Amino acid sequence: MSDLPVRQGSLREHNLGLVLRQVANAPRPPSRADIAAATSLTRATVSALVDDLITGRLLAEVDPAPRAGAGRPAAGLVLAANGPAGLGLEINIDYLAACVVDLAGAVRHHRVRHADQRPRRPAEVLGELSELAATARADAEREGVEVAGAAVAVPGLVSAGGLVRLAPNLGWRGVDVPDGLGLDGLAVTVDNEANLAALGELHASQQTPASFLYVSGEIGIGAGIVLNGALYRGARGWSGELGHVAVRPDGPACRCGARGCLEQYAGQEAILHAAGTVDTEDLIRRAEDGDPATRAALTSAGTALGVAVAGVVNVLDVDTVVLGGVYAPLSRWLCPAVEAEVERRVLTAAWSPVAVRRSMLGADAASVGAAGAVVREIRDHPARWLTRALPLTP
Amino acid sequence: MSDLPVRQGSLREHNLGLVLRQVANAPRPPSRADIAAATSLTRATVSALVDDLITGRLLAEVDPAPRAGAGRPAAGLVLAANGPAGLGLEINIDYLAACVVDLAGAVRHHRVRHADQRPRRPAEVLGELSELAATARADAEREGVEVAGAAVAVPGLVSAGGLVRLAPNLGWRGVDVPDGLGLDGLAVTVDNEANLAALGELHASQQTPASFLYVSGEIGIGAGIVLNGALYRGARGWSGELGHVAVRPDGPACRCGARGCLEQYAGQEAILHAAGTVDTEDLIRRAEDGDPATRAALTSAGTALGVAVAGVVNVLDVDTVVLGGVYAPLSRWLCPAVEAEVERRVLTAAWSPVAVRRSMLGADAASVGAAGAVVREIRDHPARWLTRALPLTP
Repeated sequence: MSDLPVRQGSLREHNLGLVLRQVANAPRPPSRADIAAATSLTRATVSALVDDLITGRLLAEVDPAPRAGAGRPAAGLVLAANGPAGLGLEINIDYLAACVVDLAGAVRHHRVRHADQRPRRPAEVLGELSELAATARADAEREGVEVAGAAVAVPGLVSAGGLVRLAPNLGWRGVDVPDGLGLDGLAVTVDNEANLAALGELHASQQTPASFLYVSGEIGIGAGIVLNGALYRGARGWSGELGHVAVRPDGPACRCGARGCLEQYAGQEAILHAAGTVDTEDLIRRAEDGDPATRAALTSAGTALGVAVAGVVNVLDVDTVVLGGVYAPLSRWLCPAVEAEVERRVLTAAWSPVAVRRSMLGADAASVGAAGAVVREIRDHPARWLTRALPLTP
Repeated sequence: MSDLPVRQGSLREHNLGLVLRQVANAPRPPSRADIAAATSLTRATVSALVDDLITGRLLAEVDPAPRAGAGRPAAGLVLAANGPAGLGLEINIDYLAACVVDLAGAVRHHRVRHADQRPRRPAEVLGELSELAATARADAEREGVEVAGAAVAVPGLVSAGGLVRLAPNLGWRGVDVPDGLGLDGLAVTVDNEANLAALGELHASQQTPASFLYVSGEIGIGAGIVLNGALYRGARGWSGELGHVAVRPDGPACRCGARGCLEQYAGQEAILHAAGTVDTEDLIRRAEDGDPATRAALTSAGTALGVAVAGVVNVLDVDTVVLGGVYAPLSRWLCPAVEAEVERRVLTAAWSPVAVRRSMLGADAASVGAAGAVVREIRDHPARWLTRALPLTP
């Protein structure tokens, strides 16, 4: 309960957001009159707000569909395809990625470079990512899209200001990512990759439930927790370290210093090692061919994952688990084992089933989610963007 | 972001709550003028609201402290001690409890009856609890306190309407608690005991952090999750089943049907069995005397608890763990083992310590928390109470 009155300045901000959301959520391009009817704002107010949003390149007008009956049909409004866009960057253990997502949510550019990042110094990694970012920006600008900000997904714990506090699998401690990237004049935020992937998944479809556990399987294993339509970040922003939940307290030593962590049973390298291969493509091929050692390795990883996930579901009570990252292409073989443990161990599963399914965005979830987070910031706070884009407007 | 305008009716509700909170949170009894100054409401508005709150027995006037200087000092306002109160009831595996908490948070009545509830039918248990409730109500009314509603704490999963869906240790399935209690004319809500205990802990002191994991150790083990000052209930209201987190996936069989659940290592009966006794008082005496078997049993339970708690802290990122229920008097011996596992397994513990401490309310947390929840409902929504208490006011 807020004890503060609503201020005048925030009213315009609120109404700009309201109009933009009406356009974003409408099943077909609404007219100004449609928006006035839906919001109870006057037509004059809606028109002034729409004009500002068009000048600021957040909305565009499209030709109306031909209509039977009298009167000239009104122009429809859509989110601008050539407005501001988000740049999503991802640093993972064995690849770097960059993508651009426009205001309407379309992916306009996407590049991945596979290479083990562990032997490299952070400055080298960030230098190469900066090149990927420059290419993405130049590509987007050729299409008339302006990159308005960047978000970087990292497989680790991030502090305020984009400092990577700890990324155990990269061996990074205290790395200042925005500083290392040096992206001229671009606001850069940094977040955990599972968090950004979970946000990507949340906004990828209207069918995504409001609460779910997103599991990002890579060499490390992270989780993004979405509760009632919002990302849960934890008391200090370090939630979701699923990879370090103990499966067997006296199991094999983990890079984090503890023993028996989930990563030692279900991390990408543990699975490859158990299956006797070093390559995920090869692993998938063998699994498709029905190779017994590969199938057994995947069942065993799925069981360990299921034990850890069942514990989280017992504590958090979410009814959907989404398998992402490298788990997405492996989900055909992982899901049955995860489901069996969840069914056996989750107290409520007997009368209220828990759905375990693959991510819709697959391996691109973190970079697409990162770019989408930049775009959503603009969509949620259009007034801030307009202040930047239209500096002469009072 | 709400798209709805603020309505006139809710303004009075809002302001009544605002005035009541000012009184509740003030370091000393404020005058009407103090409240007007703090809220920016006019003195006339504050006076009218205060009059209604006094007539409705939510506020009372106290004599002002003598004051130097000119003018008659104004009367101070306090929460009414003889206003509406909350009845808290608890069903646990080996006891029943009832208590009454007044509007100012004082415990006015508290009774516990120890007896194993497992051999009894739900109707018998609810019948005895109903008697405890009647005694508590009669006691309170003799002191001029009116019980305004009841909340019941149960060791299980509760559905809408107060139906206990499953209480594994009691063997209850589908028990309608409000119906079985039959408390005449009293609104009865039912909630998980760890949830109500966590709420009790949250409001027991200004020092309680805004986010913490409350662990309720009884024969079963539950958890109440408080995030940013609010109870997190889960997607379906069934969060906090910490007792069924796996410590060893192939460990001993649990009453829930799975294997290796935390309850099998750190539940009250597992600890008593390992220490070679059947009574908690005796266990505490032996631990105080330094009995090696007892100390070893407590360390072993604390280690298992620490493994499970570390997993939750890795996923949820809370920096405080509160040990309640029977764990409160045992915390001297449990805490070191819990802390050792947390320090070893929580990824962020190296630079950001996690505090493990005993509950302030101890064994009474659930019943006191239940009564407090009724009182807070009145304090948060005074207009609803006034509508009931002052039916003639428009």
